[in-house]
Amino acid sequence: MTSTVEKPALSLLGLGAMGGALARAWLAAGHPVTVWNRTAARAEALADQGARVAATPAEAVAASDLVIVCLLDHASAGEVLDGADPSGKDLVDLTTGTPEEARARARWAGERGARFLDGGVMAVPPMIGTAGSGAYVFYSGSRALFEDHAGTLAVPAGTVYAGEDPGLAALLDVALLSAMTGMFAGVAHAFALTRDDVAPKEFADLVVGWLRAMASYAYGVADHLDTGDYTRNVTSGLAMMVRGNATLLRTAEEQRVSPELLTPFMTLMERRLAGGHDGEGTTGVIDLLRVP
Amino acid sequence: MTSTVEKPALSLLGLGAMGGALARAWLAAGHPVTVWNRTAARAEALADQGARVAATPAEAVAASDLVIVCLLDHASAGEVLDGADPSGKDLVDLTTGTPEEARARARWAGERGARFLDGGVMAVPPMIGTAGSGAYVFYSGSRALFEDHAGTLAVPAGTVYAGEDPGLAALLDVALLSAMTGMFAGVAHAFALTRDDVAPKEFADLVVGWLRAMASYAYGVADHLDTGDYTRNVTSGLAMMVRGNATLLRTAEEQRVSPELLTPFMTLMERRLAGGHDGEGTTGVIDLLRVP
Ligand SMILES: NC(=O)c1ccc[n+]([C@@H]2O[C@H](COP(=O)([O-])OP(=O)(O)OC[C@H]3O[C@@H](n4cnc5c(N)ncnc54)[C@H](OP(=O)(O)O)[C@@H]3O)[C@@H](O)[C@H]2O)c1
Ligand SMILES: NC(=O)c1ccc[n+]([C@@H]2O[C@H](COP(=O)([O-])OP(=O)(O)OC[C@H]3O[C@@H](n4cnc5c(N)ncnc54)[C@H](OP(=O)(O)O)[C@@H]3O)[C@@H](O)[C@H]2O)c1
Repeated sequence: MTSTVEKPALSLLGLGAMGGALARAWLAAGHPVTVWNRTAARAEALADQGARVAATPAEAVAASDLVIVCLLDHASAGEVLDGADPSGKDLVDLTTGTPEEARARARWAGERGARFLDGGVMAVPPMIGTAGSGAYVFYSGSRALFEDHAGTLAVPAGTVYAGEDPGLAALLDVALLSAMTGMFAGVAHAFALTRDDVAPKEFADLVVGWLRAMASYAYGVADHLDTGDYTRNVTSGLAMMVRGNATLLRTAEEQRVSPELLTPFMTLMERRLAGGHDGEGTTGVIDLLRVP
Repeated sequence: MTSTVEKPALSLLGLGAMGGALARAWLAAGHPVTVWNRTAARAEALADQGARVAATPAEAVAASDLVIVCLLDHASAGEVLDGADPSGKDLVDLTTGTPEEARARARWAGERGARFLDGGVMAVPPMIGTAGSGAYVFYSGSRALFEDHAGTLAVPAGTVYAGEDPGLAALLDVALLSAMTGMFAGVAHAFALTRDDVAPKEFADLVVGWLRAMASYAYGVADHLDTGDYTRNVTSGLAMMVRGNATLLRTAEEQRVSPELLTPFMTLMERRLAGGHDGEGTTGVIDLLRVP
């Protein structure tokens, strides 16, 4: 089926694992796509699928009103955009970076007469363009840009607009990756404990079910931060949890597993308890993470 | 409705938050329950609900064939059981402890002619006796004991029999609590990053959804451990993840959040990468946790 409705054109700079997946999703949906990549072979491989290949970043930027960048990091995106003229363009940066890096790119674009949107992709490449994969992208910056291109942006993945501050998408992206890092560390410790005694697949079923159930802990933390009362609805107080930590550490010793992934959180729980907060859960640890 | 079918009797030693919830669940289900608690007032409070109050631990142990213990820790359970005669009894210890502590209790019981089952309660007290709460108890030790009392044991919570080694229930219990500790640490870091910029309730929705989706990471780890091939189905290799870690750390610095909860896992990822494993995900970190 060939649609007679013209889909909006876009340019995409960066065809690595993620940029390549994005390109294929937009091409499959019928968008005219101009691509550029440092290693030209990756761009040429997409010509078969209908992509127009630009010879330089400047040519790619000039080719479409909507320009999307998905490069290694903030520095490489800066190098690539350096010789291009973004004036009058809508620039969307899907390169992972920090909030300040996103704000710096927004200033750069604003000074050159472009509207700007930063994005944080919450997916791995195989999830891109796959309906029901749960993939989504945080966007922040120009709401007008986001609304004008809402349909195009929704092609590769779901979209969540986080606000006008261009740093918000990066902040949310990094915050979720940070929470995941902690979860992965806990899972690594748990498999280290059990690997010699419990079939890994059986343990995976147990730990996935348990972590999914216990993730709702975050709602309790949010309620504590919102109200400022860190004792609300606490069923296991800090004193009991600190006592439980000792059992976790003795078990690690019995199983000959280093406790290094768990001890920093336990140390903060002890510091908070020593501060006289035994009726609280662990929300108070968040206060201790603030660097003055 | 009064049932004419006699429910099995049991004795319960320890009526703290958890022991009290267990007692109420069995009483509500119509089991004859004999209780003992160091602080007698907690036992007497259950007499109204039909509990028989024993004056000493020995009297409580003597009163029923099935004897359940839920005390503070291994040491206090040892003190309480010290003067009792468990011969011919079925002893179930729901006190949280290490695998070795459970095995020591099993030996103690075996030497005195009792069958033994250790339990690890995966729930907080309000979930006990609440249908659909998801609460369950790991059991390990005498399979015959577990099967003979299956109906009674299923009253307060679901049951998972882990095997004849009495240490397995404690191992699984502690492993899940350890994984949860890591997840809570990650969540604490994530809220520390976002609390000043994103409404905590909105962030909670995002992080709960994300962690529930990413928990399936454990299936990939299990597959790696089962096959010994840590590169199978890896979509984000270690080299990319280590580069991503740098963005997480820079963001923590921008937001004035201490990285101490994330750095130990990142350090192990770097060590594994330096060992020449850049095609792997993070499963190799588990090997590094082994204490020689
Ligand atoms: N892959 C994922 O799972 C994932 C998930 C979420 C977000 N992301 C983010 O998406 C972005 C792209 O990731 P990816 O997976 O596509 O990475 P990748 O496969 O390593 O691709 C990197 C891309 O950047 C280009 N590049 C690197 N340095 C360059 C330079 N100095 N000048 C010009 N081009 C340069 C590469 O060009 P060459 O082809 O010439 O090397 C390639 O197009 C990153 O910010 C990443 O954090 C990735
Ligand atoms: N609460 C939870 O969320 C939870 C979840 C899973 C597992 N567990 C486990 O369940 C067990 C009981 O926890 P809990 O929440 O009921 O604790 P708790 O409310 O602190 O109650 C502790 C119980 O132990 C008794 N006890 C303490 N030291 C004693 C001693 N030296 N001699 C005799 N009795 C002593 C206490 O008697 P008194 O009344 O006289 O103080 C009380 O009955 C623990 O192993 C805990 O790890 C608890």
